[in-house]
Amino acid sequence: MDFPPLREELRGLEPYGAPQLSLDVAPVQLNVNENPYPPSPAVVAEIASAVAQAASGLNRYPDRELVALREALAGYLGHGVRPEQVWAANGSNEVMLQLLQAFGGPGRTALSFAPTYSMYPEYARDTVTDWVVGAREDDFGLDLDRARALVEEVRPSVVLLPSPNNPTGTALPPAAVTVLCEAVGDGGIVVVDEAYGEFRRAGTPSALELLPRHRNLVVTRTMSKAFALAGARLGYLAADPAVCDAIRVVRLPYHLSAVTQAVALAALRHAPELLGQVDRLREERDACEAWLRGQGLSAAESDANFVLFGTFADRHAVWQGLLDRGVLVRETGPEGWLRVSIGTPDEMMAFRTALTEVLARVARVTPVTPVTRSQG
Amino acid sequence: MDFPPLREELRGLEPYGAPQLSLDVAPVQLNVNENPYPPSPAVVAEIASAVAQAASGLNRYPDRELVALREALAGYLGHGVRPEQVWAANGSNEVMLQLLQAFGGPGRTALSFAPTYSMYPEYARDTVTDWVVGAREDDFGLDLDRARALVEEVRPSVVLLPSPNNPTGTALPPAAVTVLCEAVGDGGIVVVDEAYGEFRRAGTPSALELLPRHRNLVVTRTMSKAFALAGARLGYLAADPAVCDAIRVVRLPYHLSAVTQAVALAALRHAPELLGQVDRLREERDACEAWLRGQGLSAAESDANFVLFGTFADRHAVWQGLLDRGVLVRETGPEGWLRVSIGTPDEMMAFRTALTEVLARVARVTPVTPVTRSQG
Repeated sequence: MDFPPLREELRGLEPYGAPQLSLDVAPVQLNVNENPYPPSPAVVAEIASAVAQAASGLNRYPDRELVALREALAGYLGHGVRPEQVWAANGSNEVMLQLLQAFGGPGRTALSFAPTYSMYPEYARDTVTDWVVGAREDDFGLDLDRARALVEEVRPSVVLLPSPNNPTGTALPPAAVTVLCEAVGDGGIVVVDEAYGEFRRAGTPSALELLPRHRNLVVTRTMSKAFALAGARLGYLAADPAVCDAIRVVRLPYHLSAVTQAVALAALRHAPELLGQVDRLREERDACEAWLRGQGLSAAESDANFVLFGTFADRHAVWQGLLDRGVLVRETGPEGWLRVSIGTPDEMMAFRTALTEVLARVARVTPVTPVTRSQG
Repeated sequence: MDFPPLREELRGLEPYGAPQLSLDVAPVQLNVNENPYPPSPAVVAEIASAVAQAASGLNRYPDRELVALREALAGYLGHGVRPEQVWAANGSNEVMLQLLQAFGGPGRTALSFAPTYSMYPEYARDTVTDWVVGAREDDFGLDLDRARALVEEVRPSVVLLPSPNNPTGTALPPAAVTVLCEAVGDGGIVVVDEAYGEFRRAGTPSALELLPRHRNLVVTRTMSKAFALAGARLGYLAADPAVCDAIRVVRLPYHLSAVTQAVALAALRHAPELLGQVDRLREERDACEAWLRGQGLSAAESDANFVLFGTFADRHAVWQGLLDRGVLVRETGPEGWLRVSIGTPDEMMAFRTALTEVLARVARVTPVTPVTRSQG
């Protein structure tokens, strides 16, 4: 056997992750849906003070049950969510892994609908869960009859529904969540991944509203995006308390450090300030969509802090053209599309300027099928 | 199907973890091998300052490759270890999970020798890896011929060897590591878990010395014990760079927060101070062993910050008797034994006082087979 003796299905794979390029090469980084606004000095000082307090007891293990943090997260979520309905881990990544460790596994299937978040098949692979992916419609929404039929055929243990979807930005209506929760029944869970939930447009409901109706519904969130804390790695979920208890069986003991718990608690105390940039980012996103359509491009309607746009006969050439001009976007989603994260007004100006130059040189294509919701 | 639809093999299981009792109930906590000495105010201030600096950029994702931290850990380990030979995660727990995700899995086997660390079978279960456990000898050491024969029979992909062993405190000689690395060959890895490595007695070598000889050798460490940073959750390993590259395929992207990286780097800058209590704990451990034997008990020779002692016809009664006197130890290890972590001199005095009272009331047993290395 070749050394190292990696599992057969992992051989030759590259580690997941967008290219991380230095600011020298790409001063405008719009590729990983980060929030461009750093915490204020006041919040930084509060975080440092909270960590100093935690640090004086760092010789002891952290609270394995995250009691204070789960209370604070429940308070932030509202919608009647109680602390015993909340669980948290090192980023949504670990929340999803724990869900699949508990509810997936050999002989079980996880289902999503493409285009969908590109980490999901990795969680399935890492937990030896079968992975089935259906298709979204041309407008990136779900046809509920087709989705229900696929659930009835596949009998998934876990359905993964990003809403707003990554990389398209599409939010699912409550009816879609209800249809899928009912189709899955007690034999599985439906995970609505609201990593970008706080960026929803006015009038777009959260699946949190449906928690009292569906005990197999799990709503996941993160502090990485709206809270501007990608570096702190705090993901969490709200669900039936029995789901949290199930996760406690597979979680690594003491998985969430005392420092992470302290940072998240400090940030939650400053939620209004940290979330203060969400409205600005929403406006910038809506302006970006409108501008892209004004250029004759398609742009998917987005409830997130990014916009999927295209389509290009050679999207890599467009991606490279933007990078040559210092703007890093993400080459992801269906063939021909690119995704741009919403940055500061200056960063978006740099994006528009660079894209205008690139468009003058690069061929576009019209989608074969009309993208009804996303045409300008 | 009952709700929630937990994997069959997880149903009815309790989450792993020692009982966490409040200081009201158990003012002397000697149950989870924590270091009793908190970081000094100077180290706390340094950690807070490092976190403040990291916090000003928390809107961005952390360095996925942990470059600065891997360099600092390599520098700390010495033995010619290079940064590309180092990997880190949220506690040794996550390091082990990643190793089994990469090198274990369905149809593969992880092997250890009991008594051994009680989390290992959980890592195997969570990665759908078969779990086989051989036996240590009566002195808690390994018979190398028997161990080699078991490796040749089982053909494990991963061998897990805690050294010093938890819960017995027993360190493996280099010859044992070499025999097992050669028996396993390129078809597997041998993980020497040195979580308690810094507490080794003078003259007990580290498996780090053997890294240049065995490319299938992985040495894991933690900052939880000797560095007194259990709350910070920082485990790491040293191995062939190809092993680190393999782990990068299965690690969750951005698994280690910017804050955790900053805390660990700050602590490593203060390594001499944080490690300054190790000698004191070693002396207290040796004194504890000697005292236990002076009471006519057996005490396993320990290279760690705990001592396994016994044997008792009803160890639970002894555990409860100690707890009734405010001293919490761990009911773990082979039947009849208990494990006590090494605390401050005051805490150890409280332990001795409580145990003396309990021994006056509780029956002991003599081990059926002589525990040669551990008799007083």
